[in-house]
Amino acid sequence: MMKRTCLLTLTLNEGQKYSKIHMERPIAIFDSGMGGLTVVKEIHSLMPGKNIIYLGDTARVPYGTKSSDVIKGYAKQITKFLSTFNPWVVVVACHTVSSLALNFLKRNFPQLYFIDVVTPSVDESISITKNYRIGVIGTPATISSGKYQKLIKNANPGIKVFSQPCPLFVPLVEEGWIKGDVPEIIAKKYLSGLINKKIDTIILGCTHYPILKKVIQNVLGRDINLIDASEVTGLKVKTFFEKKNMLKYEVEKSPVLYFTDVTKDHKKIINFFWKNHKLTVRRITLENHV
Amino acid sequence: MMKRTCLLTLTLNEGQKYSKIHMERPIAIFDSGMGGLTVVKEIHSLMPGKNIIYLGDTARVPYGTKSSDVIKGYAKQITKFLSTFNPWVVVVACHTVSSLALNFLKRNFPQLYFIDVVTPSVDESISITKNYRIGVIGTPATISSGKYQKLIKNANPGIKVFSQPCPLFVPLVEEGWIKGDVPEIIAKKYLSGLINKKIDTIILGCTHYPILKKVIQNVLGRDINLIDASEVTGLKVKTFFEKKNMLKYEVEKSPVLYFTDVTKDHKKIINFFWKNHKLTVRRITLENHV
Repeated sequence: MMKRTCLLTLTLNEGQKYSKIHMERPIAIFDSGMGGLTVVKEIHSLMPGKNIIYLGDTARVPYGTKSSDVIKGYAKQITKFLSTFNPWVVVVACHTVSSLALNFLKRNFPQLYFIDVVTPSVDESISITKNYRIGVIGTPATISSGKYQKLIKNANPGIKVFSQPCPLFVPLVEEGWIKGDVPEIIAKKYLSGLINKKIDTIILGCTHYPILKKVIQNVLGRDINLIDASEVTGLKVKTFFEKKNMLKYEVEKSPVLYFTDVTKDHKKIINFFWKNHKLTVRRITLENHV
Repeated sequence: MMKRTCLLTLTLNEGQKYSKIHMERPIAIFDSGMGGLTVVKEIHSLMPGKNIIYLGDTARVPYGTKSSDVIKGYAKQITKFLSTFNPWVVVVACHTVSSLALNFLKRNFPQLYFIDVVTPSVDESISITKNYRIGVIGTPATISSGKYQKLIKNANPGIKVFSQPCPLFVPLVEEGWIKGDVPEIIAKKYLSGLINKKIDTIILGCTHYPILKKVIQNVLGRDINLIDASEVTGLKVKTFFEKKNMLKYEVEKSPVLYFTDVTKDHKKIINFFWKNHKLTVRRITLENHV
């Protein structure tokens, strides 16, 4: 892997309705908000020479408490925007969209190749569990979709799956309360049921959750494996290019980040993910809300 | 006031893009989500004979962490929809919109009469404080707008205002964790600074917060006055009709609730607000997201 020495240009164009950058075929990545930046970071670090565009729907975040209909509508709108860049692959970096709308997107955009965050997490969990007892945590929409449970059962009906929605984890991360008594007491409340089920592996089924990794590991204990979707999804994207024999040396590219809203807090989170980097950040409007 | 004996029709039309009820000139009320139902309940209980329509933008909630531009765009779109009912008055039951977009709405809809939730809360706080030290809590967008601080200072420059954003209160209420150790520890974290400032009055500057009234009162102590915007705003709307001599006896009407998204959890919250009532609930799409 090439050494990362990038110091990218900082361009924040606020208030633009539509601001499109021209680039060679990119990897397109999207999420409901800022959480998908974990996936951007991983993919950029694995393949720094690839163009990456990201869309975070910060004007309508969160998705995890919304209905399947609304989530599908938003995901379709975003994919339509990303498809105009003619991407090699569209990475659905949102567990809620991956759980509820992946087949819907595949039907609506048959010309695009999708990689979601649920499938690689499921594959990894099945390959590392030893006692065949897996936990899944996620947003209410992700958990009630039953997607993880179904995929694991389909692959191995002998595995027992225990799931738990954790709706306060996303606002906790967005508030920046990622250590101390508050996340600890909330994590205990959510996770004590899973500890009783004697799981040996847990899927962090939301892009925000890896930021709470330490708290979750403390509450669950050292013996339980935590699966971070950004890592396994990054590897899957790399394999996609390896198979195409497209992992030759390329000059490092700057990821381009589009958001539907940009506030001071969003800028703080971008900084959290990309310390010492200068990024190209664009704000766009996807809907006719004015 | 007439006795409330209503048992309203339950009609939940999901998936309809546009479903409009014809009614005599109503009171129109809106909020980013479910919180504004506290205002609906108060106004309905004060004037059960008035038609009420409500719009909760549950497909894009919350507003309090979004930018002023985005909030204005959403508020304009909602007001445009509500204006088609030719309402007597539009009640902005969202503190974030009241703080950031009220003048913008007045400029864009000069034919409409607006009552917001910030002004009556400010008036009440000024009239009851004895030591001239007032606290304000709200969403990050509301607090950073500085609206409360400015209105109080304009009315009485001798009053000291201390404010605190409490972003986790909304998801706590939506999770249904309104008593016990979790809300208590979070409330302590947010409110301890205000206790040190020796305030004697606090404005609950978000429609969700009255649901946490007991926890907030416990943490602050019995001596601090809590101002619930739904009560003071309800009285202001009543005064509006009194002045027009329009508070004659009328047969009780059923509030009609429009939402941009309806999930199981939303239905639970509607039940929480309207126990033993059957309501007309409609789902509509305000934007071209499909």
